[in-house]
Amino acid sequence: MKAAVVGTKTGKRVPRAVREQQMLDAAVAGFARHGYSAASMDDIAEAAGVSKPLVYQYLKSKEDLFTACIERESAALIAAVRAGTLSGGGAVPADRMLWNGLCAFFAHTAAHPDGWAVLHQQARSQGQPFADGVALLRAEIAELVTELIGVAARDAGCDGVLAEREVSGLAHALVGAAESLADWANTREQDPPSAKETAATLMNFCWAGLENLLGGDRWTPAH
Amino acid sequence: MKAAVVGTKTGKRVPRAVREQQMLDAAVAGFARHGYSAASMDDIAEAAGVSKPLVYQYLKSKEDLFTACIERESAALIAAVRAGTLSGGGAVPADRMLWNGLCAFFAHTAAHPDGWAVLHQQARSQGQPFADGVALLRAEIAELVTELIGVAARDAGCDGVLAEREVSGLAHALVGAAESLADWANTREQDPPSAKETAATLMNFCWAGLENLLGGDRWTPAH
Repeated sequence: MKAAVVGTKTGKRVPRAVREQQMLDAAVAGFARHGYSAASMDDIAEAAGVSKPLVYQYLKSKEDLFTACIERESAALIAAVRAGTLSGGGAVPADRMLWNGLCAFFAHTAAHPDGWAVLHQQARSQGQPFADGVALLRAEIAELVTELIGVAARDAGCDGVLAEREVSGLAHALVGAAESLADWANTREQDPPSAKETAATLMNFCWAGLENLLGGDRWTPAH
Repeated sequence: MKAAVVGTKTGKRVPRAVREQQMLDAAVAGFARHGYSAASMDDIAEAAGVSKPLVYQYLKSKEDLFTACIERESAALIAAVRAGTLSGGGAVPADRMLWNGLCAFFAHTAAHPDGWAVLHQQARSQGQPFADGVALLRAEIAELVTELIGVAARDAGCDGVLAEREVSGLAHALVGAAESLADWANTREQDPPSAKETAATLMNFCWAGLENLLGGDRWTPAH
């Protein structure tokens, strides 16, 4: 079908799907480095090797281009984390699933620092409707973590020991800690940690705490 | 001094410092509820019981008013957290200092939901220079937590066991978890937790983890 292939500055004909991904690659880099407002559509087109009208023809507007970046980067991140938690098959203990998920999260955010910056800094900092896209991603990850804590509780034989409210709170604490650490790891110029080191820091921070909690061993101010 | 006292719509004369705080109260509420762009200077003046020109005379511009809100709310939050961690005097163990600090943090963010929304949602979502003000607050709280972890390490007799990098990572994990939980607690409509419950959730999440870590008991993927 002719519409699926377009001309480029070099005269090579590239399928539309491929060309769109190249535009999104250039846009994610541009938005991450310059911010949404300052990023230039001229520069994005130039970096993608296409004309500016072609970017508008494909992605409609700067708003739509930014939305498409958020959607693509969100989908890639959630897919990476899901694949991580499921990587050991069904017979993996909950701490190992959490570890695999955290390793996948930090590996993905380290390998795609521009994508992470678009999601966690740029999209959140541009108000509606962009912030809503990131809120959806966050809710999806929090739900995944809530499920993991549920599995951990069943593994520990203490299903029902924690109130739904506390499990929800723990999941949001973990998501906030992971987001904060991904920014920290990606912006630490001296002695940057590997994804595994960052994941290990968070596991050591939270797991023994969660493990004790699921075993009924609570921290109390009186102890 | 005459310049320190101004007329109001009701004819009562109110000291400038008091009047400015009333304007900031109204502005924090307006920015938190409507967002920076949509908040109206007319409504803010109305809510403060003054004329709009007086708001401009005192606070110069909407940008300066927003900056003043960020500065006031940041200073109040950091002062509350510092007072919390120091509330037991010098002879308090590190876990108790952390507990007191967390209780103070969640009590403050619960008592000032509009101030917290301005700092964590509105200011971060308006780009520069507002985001810089919040980044400063965040760095100050992370430094306070880093000091607390250092005290905990000394208390546990294991000063130097953790690399500077890991302590920094743990501090950023805790700050991110606390921010995320403050949002969660303030936006949870059904069965909202008290500040102490939220602080207890985070202590249970992190402290036994930190405690084991400081005692040399690490979580490892192989266990």
